[in-house]
Amino acid sequence: MLMSMAGRILIINPNASRACTEGIAEAVAPFAAPGLPRLDVTFLPEGPPAIVTWRDWHAAAEPLCRAIEREAAEAYVIGCVSDPGLEAARAVTDRPVLGMFRCAVAAAMTRAERFGVIGFTHRSEARQRRILQAMGVEQRLAAWIPLDLPMEVLTDPVAPQPRIAEAARALAERGAEAIVLGCAGLARHVGPAAEPGLPVIEPCQAAAAAALLAVLGARAPVLAA
Amino acid sequence: MLMSMAGRILIINPNASRACTEGIAEAVAPFAAPGLPRLDVTFLPEGPPAIVTWRDWHAAAEPLCRAIEREAAEAYVIGCVSDPGLEAARAVTDRPVLGMFRCAVAAAMTRAERFGVIGFTHRSEARQRRILQAMGVEQRLAAWIPLDLPMEVLTDPVAPQPRIAEAARALAERGAEAIVLGCAGLARHVGPAAEPGLPVIEPCQAAAAAALLAVLGARAPVLAA
Amino acid sequence: MLMSMAGRILIINPNASRACTEGIAEAVAPFAAPGLPRLDVTFLPEGPPAIVTWRDWHAAAEPLCRAIEREAAEAYVIGCVSDPGLEAARAVTDRPVLGMFRCAVAAAMTRAERFGVIGFTHRSEARQRRILQAMGVEQRLAAWIPLDLPMEVLTDPVAPQPRIAEAARALAERGAEAIVLGCAGLARHVGPAAEPGLPVIEPCQAAAAAALLAVLGARAPVLAA
Amino acid sequence: MLMSMAGRILIINPNASRACTEGIAEAVAPFAAPGLPRLDVTFLPEGPPAIVTWRDWHAAAEPLCRAIEREAAEAYVIGCVSDPGLEAARAVTDRPVLGMFRCAVAAAMTRAERFGVIGFTHRSEARQRRILQAMGVEQRLAAWIPLDLPMEVLTDPVAPQPRIAEAARALAERGAEAIVLGCAGLARHVGPAAEPGLPVIEPCQAAAAAALLAVLGARAPVLAA
Amino acid sequence: MLMSMAGRILIINPNASRACTEGIAEAVAPFAAPGLPRLDVTFLPEGPPAIVTWRDWHAAAEPLCRAIEREAAEAYVIGCVSDPGLEAARAVTDRPVLGMFRCAVAAAMTRAERFGVIGFTHRSEARQRRILQAMGVEQRLAAWIPLDLPMEVLTDPVAPQPRIAEAARALAERGAEAIVLGCAGLARHVGPAAEPGLPVIEPCQAAAAAALLAVLGARAPVLAA
Amino acid sequence: MLMSMAGRILIINPNASRACTEGIAEAVAPFAAPGLPRLDVTFLPEGPPAIVTWRDWHAAAEPLCRAIEREAAEAYVIGCVSDPGLEAARAVTDRPVLGMFRCAVAAAMTRAERFGVIGFTHRSEARQRRILQAMGVEQRLAAWIPLDLPMEVLTDPVAPQPRIAEAARALAERGAEAIVLGCAGLARHVGPAAEPGLPVIEPCQAAAAAALLAVLGARAPVLAA
Repeated sequence: MLMSMAGRILIINPNASRACTEGIAEAVAPFAAPGLPRLDVTFLPEGPPAIVTWRDWHAAAEPLCRAIEREAAEAYVIGCVSDPGLEAARAVTDRPVLGMFRCAVAAAMTRAERFGVIGFTHRSEARQRRILQAMGVEQRLAAWIPLDLPMEVLTDPVAPQPRIAEAARALAERGAEAIVLGCAGLARHVGPAAEPGLPVIEPCQAAAAAALLAVLGARAPVLAA
Repeated sequence: MLMSMAGRILIINPNASRACTEGIAEAVAPFAAPGLPRLDVTFLPEGPPAIVTWRDWHAAAEPLCRAIEREAAEAYVIGCVSDPGLEAARAVTDRPVLGMFRCAVAAAMTRAERFGVIGFTHRSEARQRRILQAMGVEQRLAAWIPLDLPMEVLTDPVAPQPRIAEAARALAERGAEAIVLGCAGLARHVGPAAEPGLPVIEPCQAAAAAALLAVLGARAPVLAA
Repeated sequence: MLMSMAGRILIINPNASRACTEGIAEAVAPFAAPGLPRLDVTFLPEGPPAIVTWRDWHAAAEPLCRAIEREAAEAYVIGCVSDPGLEAARAVTDRPVLGMFRCAVAAAMTRAERFGVIGFTHRSEARQRRILQAMGVEQRLAAWIPLDLPMEVLTDPVAPQPRIAEAARALAERGAEAIVLGCAGLARHVGPAAEPGLPVIEPCQAAAAAALLAVLGARAPVLAA
Repeated sequence: MLMSMAGRILIINPNASRACTEGIAEAVAPFAAPGLPRLDVTFLPEGPPAIVTWRDWHAAAEPLCRAIEREAAEAYVIGCVSDPGLEAARAVTDRPVLGMFRCAVAAAMTRAERFGVIGFTHRSEARQRRILQAMGVEQRLAAWIPLDLPMEVLTDPVAPQPRIAEAARALAERGAEAIVLGCAGLARHVGPAAEPGLPVIEPCQAAAAAALLAVLGARAPVLAA
Repeated sequence: MLMSMAGRILIINPNASRACTEGIAEAVAPFAAPGLPRLDVTFLPEGPPAIVTWRDWHAAAEPLCRAIEREAAEAYVIGCVSDPGLEAARAVTDRPVLGMFRCAVAAAMTRAERFGVIGFTHRSEARQRRILQAMGVEQRLAAWIPLDLPMEVLTDPVAPQPRIAEAARALAERGAEAIVLGCAGLARHVGPAAEPGLPVIEPCQAAAAAALLAVLGARAPVLAA
Repeated sequence: MLMSMAGRILIINPNASRACTEGIAEAVAPFAAPGLPRLDVTFLPEGPPAIVTWRDWHAAAEPLCRAIEREAAEAYVIGCVSDPGLEAARAVTDRPVLGMFRCAVAAAMTRAERFGVIGFTHRSEARQRRILQAMGVEQRLAAWIPLDLPMEVLTDPVAPQPRIAEAARALAERGAEAIVLGCAGLARHVGPAAEPGLPVIEPCQAAAAAALLAVLGARAPVLAA
């Protein structure tokens, strides 16, 4: 069967939110195509409701590892922009495991020398800076600007857009040449983020592309045989 | 027609070699799928025979710019691991333009903190280091090891493999946690490079994935409307 | 009562090992003195048996946070050289929380420009490098050398000493000007580590000194009033 | 005799000011305890009146070295936040020699990733930046803000406090997560510096803690024997 | 003949502008002296009219290499502050080849720790930043401020001076301790740039001095024989 | 009188050695030319006999400042490769003051991205590293190799040459693309240092060139008026 030959990429949303999981699925849908690895999205019912604190961040690691042990895939994506449990997950499988924020930052670096991040709330800045340090590119962060909007605004399909556009413009003014959406839940708002004319990186999509590369690239030796 | 809706990514090999162009096409073939942007590979008959020197590197820029002005695409990839003319090309189009080496290094950074590069000849090290500096990640280069093999060995389908595996092992010993193939012509040799068990990044494929992201991501606002 | 006026520093060994806890207590004993804050050492019965993997590292965070919520102190020390749960712990108290590895590295920097680390096993290098990145001083690490000895050798009071002295000499040769013991269980082996004549930093003691400073320093305004 | 067993840490104020020397003694008094090394504070009658210029900074080195040669101690602290003569002093004794500014910055790094410095006058910024460079952490300096107050204000027990609180708030706004008092004479003003709620590091105390660690740590092998 | 013994430094303006060439000649005139290598200034009739874009920057490389192959000299200077074709030029001769911007930045570093650049137009910032990255000193750039004046103002002997003085003051306020004129055509405006009292580095002169050093230094062994 | 119009650059050897002073004078002699500023070389009878230790380094500062206050010049050069007293000297005059090591390193950076240093004895490495840190380019040091030869060998006109050539080859093997002579007394040995074919920077000459630039460049506004 073609699907089985094409394999499966499993995106694991490490929290327990179905809405968030559906948002990821929608964001990566354009990367689905016959013959390519399938992009499945799942979530952790036993994970924290959302990953807002460092405590949540740690709490996601164990259920994430168990999900990977339970579910076979050719590659795994951790569906959260603070990349929780990444190293733990990499130790429980020999398949590629990708973190969405690392993928988004790497994608930004293919487009520009300096990037800015639009964050959900100021509470996630420290975790994302830690990732930039691990990647060695904190100096290339032009600025990190949180939306810090009330939840009812954030979940509205239109209401957060002026604030997002404003943040994007502020990043451009501070020297960003590409904009990373520092939240998996902003996929529908690429438009306002793109207003200053800079490339916008949506992390679910960046991770989908990186996972396709990891899976298809690993097969290359077979093709070349 | 589906193809036209799906758009076109143009990979421009900036040299005049047909064999090299075919190698790129073969490397990116696994990324072709119905409904996704088409990956076309072309070359520059008026470009240098190969990009071996800095003079070649400069000479590729003008024909590259003209090819981009001539040929419409949703995104462009410069099909050479020294990313010649990247900034010049970006100035002649408002579509994304990607350099293969930047894409490969960024992909390595999604997989590991430190990477090594297997180069074709020692003559390309300086150009690739310059790119690492532009990306801000030169400190993350564990080592850069050239093959420096005679052309008749390099073009043989099997002969260079022991040297490639040896270089990969040497990079692993020096702390690389991922291996970047620093040459667009090594796509058939992912196997020996993978021998030490580290992720191997093939630059043509890394650029294909980055270009798919650039094109599909830029469409996202429309989908989300 | 003097003790209560002098306050209490709580060192929490985030694993479930009593032997390890006793080792920490012994290491910090020289810092106990009448009138100074008391150095209490406790452990987490519900923590992992040891912190060997990233999964252990994450698993320690939640019990650690609960212990801090449960036990009043003027300052807390996380008694493990991978500083597990540090940021999470800092969010559950407004008292100072210190990580042993950060304290040891900071202490090394008061003595030298470049330092080396003697690690327990190669498995802890990645976690300690991540801490060096968070501190911004990874470039000052001369080398990281693991002991990688069998447990029966490591727990012997004498057997590991030649290997420790050898590691210390190797660090000195690679440019270290101070040596950090990258394990809370090496306190009895400061002697062999000091053989090449460089300052040796024992992490339990470094954390004890940092905690005394945090507590006594915070009281200073009262004194000065 | 207990005192002699407990040893002696000598803090040498490298200028000729008795008032300054007394301030240091008062700042470190909380670290005195039976059984611990004694913290003696002395000064250099032949040193410059204060260390304001680079010329003063150089002039302090020779008297400092002579004082160390003259006075036995288990560890020495240079009692000035520009760490004058540190390397020279280290060459004239095999006992630990500590610089107050290095100790304060290292202490800040145990508490936060980014710190700010409140300086006495703008004239000391260059010397303190040089120290940050030597430590490899200049990038972690959020900002350096001088008080630049007239001497009669600075020496008043209350008058400088609004300016200190203002500087602390400005450092917090610029991203500092800990505040280093960049002057040995601000020990009485930890209170206003702590107003924004960040940890405050007083350099005399940071050096006292580091010296205790250096002395007690060096004894550890004996204890463990 | 003395002149021939003294040798010749060839400054090649890589564009086709005679006015620009004359400006360089005038700037370096003070370095001409009997017995020293002669400073000849030439230009490339087949070069771009000016080097404004990356495309121009690439286009200059080939004519520059040919000029070097054609004209014997003891050292070559590329007379443009984006150092076009530097590496290509170095590969076609075993004589020293110098880039004006590198020489100016290096000269600034002999005078100060942090420097600012006054640029011609914002379009040259990216090229000059790339050079700073290649030199490893981008972090020492206090700020880069373009003049962005209309051509008729720029070429006026007096009109641009207020804007230049204003830019110099702005650089000083942002922490620059030396000012690099980031354009070969500002040699007549050293005066207004020097208004804030910082050292001003004029790139044609910096390159002249560096070339004299390269030529006279290479002769030293003969003198010492 | 021409000489007076041309001005005077004063090179102050901060030690009391006449032989050393004569060596500097010989090294800079090729930069003397009619109409250019005169290069005078002097020494400090009250300075240390040589600058070998940090204590010597500090001791040179005060006599150096006094010499500058005493002797008028258009620019000053500190004739020692550890740049003693540089900042102090800059504070006592508004004329340019240059350090030989900074000038030599800056000159190396005009020729290459990575350089190596041949040092006199291992005792000067720390001081020169401190300068590289102040310049922000320590990462560009490929290696620092001391000669560590007995004085009778070092002062012999021929005996040290094999060791110098060997050090230069070792630097080239470790990635140096230019060689800095890290001692003012090696001017006669540029030849053996140049053996691997890399540019060699002699610090007396580098400083002479930098001083000419500082003096002639500062005059430019007058010329342009």
